[in-house]
Amino acid sequence: MARLTAVYHVQSEPNTIEARAKAIAVEQSVEMPIEAITDASVLTDIVGQVETIDALGPTLFEVRIGLAMATTGLEAGQLFNMLFGNISLQDDVTLVDIILPDQALAAFGGPSVGIAGLRRMAGAEGRAMTCAALKPQGLPASGLATIAERLTLGGIDFIKDDHGLADQSYSRYADRVGAVAAAVRRAGAATGHKTRYLPSLSGTLDAVREQIRLGRSEGIDTFLASPLILGLPTFHAVVRENPGVAFFAHPTLTGLLRILPPVFYGRLFRLLGADAVIFPNYGGRFGYSQQTCRDLAGAARAAWGGLAPSLPVPAGGMTLERVPEILDFYGPDTLLLIGGALLTAGDKLTETSERFSRMVADASSPNSR
Amino acid sequence: MARLTAVYHVQSEPNTIEARAKAIAVEQSVEMPIEAITDASVLTDIVGQVETIDALGPTLFEVRIGLAMATTGLEAGQLFNMLFGNISLQDDVTLVDIILPDQALAAFGGPSVGIAGLRRMAGAEGRAMTCAALKPQGLPASGLATIAERLTLGGIDFIKDDHGLADQSYSRYADRVGAVAAAVRRAGAATGHKTRYLPSLSGTLDAVREQIRLGRSEGIDTFLASPLILGLPTFHAVVRENPGVAFFAHPTLTGLLRILPPVFYGRLFRLLGADAVIFPNYGGRFGYSQQTCRDLAGAARAAWGGLAPSLPVPAGGMTLERVPEILDFYGPDTLLLIGGALLTAGDKLTETSERFSRMVADASSPNSR
Repeated sequence: MARLTAVYHVQSEPNTIEARAKAIAVEQSVEMPIEAITDASVLTDIVGQVETIDALGPTLFEVRIGLAMATTGLEAGQLFNMLFGNISLQDDVTLVDIILPDQALAAFGGPSVGIAGLRRMAGAEGRAMTCAALKPQGLPASGLATIAERLTLGGIDFIKDDHGLADQSYSRYADRVGAVAAAVRRAGAATGHKTRYLPSLSGTLDAVREQIRLGRSEGIDTFLASPLILGLPTFHAVVRENPGVAFFAHPTLTGLLRILPPVFYGRLFRLLGADAVIFPNYGGRFGYSQQTCRDLAGAARAAWGGLAPSLPVPAGGMTLERVPEILDFYGPDTLLLIGGALLTAGDKLTETSERFSRMVADASSPNSR
Repeated sequence: MARLTAVYHVQSEPNTIEARAKAIAVEQSVEMPIEAITDASVLTDIVGQVETIDALGPTLFEVRIGLAMATTGLEAGQLFNMLFGNISLQDDVTLVDIILPDQALAAFGGPSVGIAGLRRMAGAEGRAMTCAALKPQGLPASGLATIAERLTLGGIDFIKDDHGLADQSYSRYADRVGAVAAAVRRAGAATGHKTRYLPSLSGTLDAVREQIRLGRSEGIDTFLASPLILGLPTFHAVVRENPGVAFFAHPTLTGLLRILPPVFYGRLFRLLGADAVIFPNYGGRFGYSQQTCRDLAGAARAAWGGLAPSLPVPAGGMTLERVPEILDFYGPDTLLLIGGALLTAGDKLTETSERFSRMVADASSPNSR
């Protein structure tokens, strides 16, 4: 029976690591004393197996645990449960990677649009792409539409809702999506550039389906989703129900300290179908290091079975001044997201957006490199 | 406009805490530079407000941030997003409490069955109650039904699925719920005690609704749910759709290190409707201290607006020998869950369950105290 491998870093004394590794394998599979299991097939096929233990330091070990794919039921929530459910409560363990058999990759499916599809949507071959955010929450739909219009006139590729925009009394989703989509269409017709608007999805599966239906009726084929807020089963379901529609994954709530960022963005979110993964860039308001960002972007783009790559979207306290440096760091398969800093331009938002668009195009077009 | 108060512990030097508190208030509300906001009502009604800053130590502060209730849209996922979304990525901040206006408590609703309702279900006035778990995953439905029958004959009040039991090929939910419910009914008729079976819910809202429908058709009115696996919106929706049905919340994946356990169990899960909250007991396989467990059980039961209390369910590596000590610690408003250790009894499972039931009844009945 096929197994996935969960790779953990475990803090332990050398003389107890073998017992600790076995305990993790049991915790994340049958969760009961092995000696009380009488069914032979459970012992051979279901109980987690310690595959390898490698010392990384005096009291730090890499432990690989083989978990039966059958225990995941090929369902997103249960996969997460098997990988890190109970073990999240034991703070000597960090999840550092997930290795899945190719048939499991195919079953979960990954991104349906991916980097190549997002490039086609933006008409942006070979260069990095740009993203801005509609804020602040509290503005009525008309105020957000005005901002979106200016960003579109500035040639931004993707305009996403702030992830705090849900379905609030001061800006109902239905009002917002209609007003913003119309503004983006109008301004896009003027520029000739097909700027995409990404409404933020929230609530139950029922609510999200209705939000997607409303968006699609406005010609929208790109959405923002927060997998850990919606729940992984809901995120995965809407991705699978909407092939050809692009979903950007937002990092909110991923600050589970003991799952390494590349696992969230490059593995879990990508596996479930995130076409683009937004993450906190180094040097901004959040604590990711350059190495973490490099690993994360690498994991999002790397070959992984037959899955399409996810587009890395560094964000979080970014500024125009940093564009050349960031593009140099990530290369052209990147979507640059400047949120609040762009909006400080106020009445000059169109011009500032134009400058952002031009900087990204100039710095990352194939000829400039 | 009504505000909720998010209470954080923040690590900071004294000379920067004021600026840091303001930054958190902005991060968790409008998430953009304040100076770029021109709308007066956004500034007064939507931007987070620092209510108080109190020193807890040389570099540790309690910071209370007032967030507009309107930003939550009274939706479970968005509430979580506002409380700890982006801030989860900044590791100097821990969420330690949530204070909600009474109208918000009423809108979210809390437990519909609660401690009093669970006592009525179990016919257990004044005493602590017992819970056991069906394991290991990998057994066919018939094997799980045999275990359930023995546990029921032993007089256990609640028998829950292992949280790893989902809808796997070796034990389809539909097969399991039918077989186990029948076994529990049969054995319950013999004992005269109405033992409850709690099937574990998994997957999308569609899947969970169908699982509840199947369970209800077997006479089941108690279910196990993992809020962070299902997603908070799904958990909240099924609670609200099924008044009078009891939902036990499982702690899997709650090991977000910087949300204190009493917040998860006593606040968030209870607010969304968990009638009982399962948590890792002190002295078991997990790292909760006695103080954490005391605070958690206290928060689950304490008066909170008009919300029903949630029943604390200490679990995780518990044994029969510890029953008197645990009951002495938690008192009678407690549901004792012994999972794997009970199952080591094998063929003596009925007798061991009887002993467990008797120990709990004897130790916690009003006369013995």
